[in-house]
Amino acid sequence: MSAPTDLDVNAALRERYGAAAPQLSDPALLGSEMLATMLRHRSVRRFTGRPVGPETITALVAAAQSAATSSNNQVWSVVEVRDDAARQRLVAQAGASAFVAEAPVVLLFVADWARASAIAGGRGEADEAAEYLESTLVGFVDAALAAQNAVVAAESLGLGTCYLGSLRNDPAAAATLAGLPARAVVAFGVALGWPHPDETAGVKPRLAPDVVHSLETYRPVSPRDIEAYESTLAAYNATQGRPSGWIRQIVARVRDIRGLHGRERMREWLTDRGLPSR
Amino acid sequence: MSAPTDLDVNAALRERYGAAAPQLSDPALLGSEMLATMLRHRSVRRFTGRPVGPETITALVAAAQSAATSSNNQVWSVVEVRDDAARQRLVAQAGASAFVAEAPVVLLFVADWARASAIAGGRGEADEAAEYLESTLVGFVDAALAAQNAVVAAESLGLGTCYLGSLRNDPAAAATLAGLPARAVVAFGVALGWPHPDETAGVKPRLAPDVVHSLETYRPVSPRDIEAYESTLAAYNATQGRPSGWIRQIVARVRDIRGLHGRERMREWLTDRGLPSR
Repeated sequence: MSAPTDLDVNAALRERYGAAAPQLSDPALLGSEMLATMLRHRSVRRFTGRPVGPETITALVAAAQSAATSSNNQVWSVVEVRDDAARQRLVAQAGASAFVAEAPVVLLFVADWARASAIAGGRGEADEAAEYLESTLVGFVDAALAAQNAVVAAESLGLGTCYLGSLRNDPAAAATLAGLPARAVVAFGVALGWPHPDETAGVKPRLAPDVVHSLETYRPVSPRDIEAYESTLAAYNATQGRPSGWIRQIVARVRDIRGLHGRERMREWLTDRGLPSR
Repeated sequence: MSAPTDLDVNAALRERYGAAAPQLSDPALLGSEMLATMLRHRSVRRFTGRPVGPETITALVAAAQSAATSSNNQVWSVVEVRDDAARQRLVAQAGASAFVAEAPVVLLFVADWARASAIAGGRGEADEAAEYLESTLVGFVDAALAAQNAVVAAESLGLGTCYLGSLRNDPAAAATLAGLPARAVVAFGVALGWPHPDETAGVKPRLAPDVVHSLETYRPVSPRDIEAYESTLAAYNATQGRPSGWIRQIVARVRDIRGLHGRERMREWLTDRGLPSR
């Protein structure tokens, strides 16, 4: 009873990679609804008014909790934001994009050492290890593994999703809106709803497989790899009526702190949240 | 043609949560092979000798690349380790568990700013923004979203997987073995293979849904929540012939740096990798 999936895995690969697409022949792979669903991922930022039922969220949370978590420590949480005014505050006060106010549901994925701290505190113990970079990384990775299960499960049901890294534009504001205690921070959000027919976003091409994937030892990127992707992405962006320039974007992101748009203060911000990442 | 999935979603929820399990009634959820696959996730550390074909890895990498990535920057890579001696070195030199030497394939997921740095360098530009905590976090989250797609796709095909956070026990050694340049680090690995019939690991119970998931604002954990989970997990561990003590484990992890087993040096280690996480 899940949403109908176009099972043409090789067509999905061509859409994902353009000219660099591998083509498969193994029937187990060609018949995989899972692969077909994942390969067709796109971000959705326009939703219909159709509600997302609470039972659906229950199922997505169960999928999220079923993902692996480092040493079964489960150092993540999720806050479901449905209230109209609360979603508007995420936009007005916490740096989320305007479309978030129109999404039926926003899931805030939290890197959460507050629960472990509370457990230790209840036994009269300290929580010093939460202050180290390793702990911050585990919280973010746990949250990401959980969120990705929720996203893929949602998409398999026909829902549309969009990750909201924008909620790291002001971690203090996001934490206040979500009511987070110390040692917890919103890692990112996920907007969720039924895709609006006017949503035109397609499957975004990615770097060719052999640019990202190497056998036995890492293969450095070549100028040819990058030029090829620049062309593939430009062709896609043209269909979306959007300018392109992946190389320019990457250079602007990595060159200096201007590429961080304020997030060069992330360590200071996380310190204020009780996660100094020492 | 994928592996047969037991579609009883409510039974899977009972296995995942024990007495705290929600039960669903929506036919779209009860009929979801995706949910059934995710809910039944378990870690697999014993594999048969059956090889994992290269075309399967191609499909898993395509699934991984189809996951969302922050601003389409794609700051992750994956190194596929098949060579017997190389997997043995991951155990002997990089801190991986012994079973990794017996896994047919190990995927090393890399938080990779080296590609962006190379692109910037090729244009005579610097790469200073790679040095900030925000960039480290994006690399780890990108790697985690990608890996989770690969893991779920693998499991849907009947493969078994196990995340290897152990590869952060010695990031310098892991990077050397994988041939990583500066500004790249192995975030974690994933061992992959066909589950051995003697693998007894089951579906590990998680915290009750309402402990991890709250509506509108974060709900702090209560002692009752934790005691209930302690019992549920103890009952599961008894079926595995293993001692239990989740509360003790959490306290030992968070109390002081002994819980980090050397990873209190993660920031220093990442600095050596060119990712100082300022």
